[in-house]
Amino acid sequence: MTHLYPQTPRTSPTRDAQRVSYDHETVHAVLDEALVCHVGFVVEGRPVVLPHLYVRLGEVLYLHGSTGARAMQAARGDGLEVCVTVTLLDGLVLARSAFNHSVNYRSVVVHGTAVVVKDPQEKTAALAALVEAVVPGRTGGTRPPSRSELAATTVLRLDLHEVSVKVRTGPPNDDPEDLGLPYWAGVLPLITSPGTPQPNDDLPDGVAVPKHVSAWKRPATRRRS
Amino acid sequence: MTHLYPQTPRTSPTRDAQRVSYDHETVHAVLDEALVCHVGFVVEGRPVVLPHLYVRLGEVLYLHGSTGARAMQAARGDGLEVCVTVTLLDGLVLARSAFNHSVNYRSVVVHGTAVVVKDPQEKTAALAALVEAVVPGRTGGTRPPSRSELAATTVLRLDLHEVSVKVRTGPPNDDPEDLGLPYWAGVLPLITSPGTPQPNDDLPDGVAVPKHVSAWKRPATRRRS
Repeated sequence: MTHLYPQTPRTSPTRDAQRVSYDHETVHAVLDEALVCHVGFVVEGRPVVLPHLYVRLGEVLYLHGSTGARAMQAARGDGLEVCVTVTLLDGLVLARSAFNHSVNYRSVVVHGTAVVVKDPQEKTAALAALVEAVVPGRTGGTRPPSRSELAATTVLRLDLHEVSVKVRTGPPNDDPEDLGLPYWAGVLPLITSPGTPQPNDDLPDGVAVPKHVSAWKRPATRRRS
Repeated sequence: MTHLYPQTPRTSPTRDAQRVSYDHETVHAVLDEALVCHVGFVVEGRPVVLPHLYVRLGEVLYLHGSTGARAMQAARGDGLEVCVTVTLLDGLVLARSAFNHSVNYRSVVVHGTAVVVKDPQEKTAALAALVEAVVPGRTGGTRPPSRSELAATTVLRLDLHEVSVKVRTGPPNDDPEDLGLPYWAGVLPLITSPGTPQPNDDLPDGVAVPKHVSAWKRPATRRRS
């Protein structure tokens, strides 16, 4: 059975409706593949957009930041109305005409109120999941947070309720009358991959690059549902 | 001489002040390397964040979109107060402690009012520059926009005036007492690179992959000042 997020006025498309969906699985796949989200909120009537790391656990998005970070401070009390957007750029779409140039992308938009996580167990679990989301296996190769470190970190909880995803895939949409033009058309995929690990120069002897680093892959297929 | 954007209350850091700068050159380099920005604006008091392509020309950021796109419609009249954020993720920073994990990144935040470009010459130049920003050399291998295509596209102009850039580079900042722990620490760089070009299956005979596609590189060092 396909689970859908409810469509609302602000998650309704103004155009390209065929590219928009509310399907849990499509949304989760994008959220689980990306690493950075852009968090938008309003300060004195004006927009602010800042990048944050996040992790999805079930139907919750956890954002984390220093307790001093702007969004984290703004969310104290009754929470912070946010729009969280996660975008993956999959390829450059080169058409015969300049106008029909495009990009292949997947972009999730989440509207809602982000609230500070107060429950210590939920907070600890979210932070461990965040480390695992960025580098699977890493929590087993690192010192867990101390009480004061937990206090210096704020975790926000944003329920996945008002959510949409927009996806463009495939070749360019050229106008029929342009098809005979002598211009190349197609897609240039963009791929994010890890470079060579750069070890600290102060590592004790015998601490080799662990497999969770040497075998790290962009989490294209990982699911954390 | 170093040119600096003026520091304002909303571009002043709440923390990590040593990572924030207002230097034109650093800002331009980030804007010229990335392809997608996240545009935040306020609709009925609530935040909206959407991805857009953009190009920098001198001290102006041009955003483009379908005339029907939300931000483009909202900018009609007196313009639209926006926060445009561009983030490049350069690497995963793995510390001995979970708490000191981080990412290396470069993020530019621009505040201002985006206005619709009405001058046809400025609009045409911005759109050509946009194509060139994404794929240098492409404007010579594509059909230029027609009058009706230009009408179907909106270009917004956002002057680079209230701008800051935050940059994290280098190894993890481990606590001195963690240095002896038997955990690997270092940086895993993330690199975006092009895959194999995927030609349309309706190309006329003899239309080969042009060099601007086969030799495409992420524009790390390109400048368009």
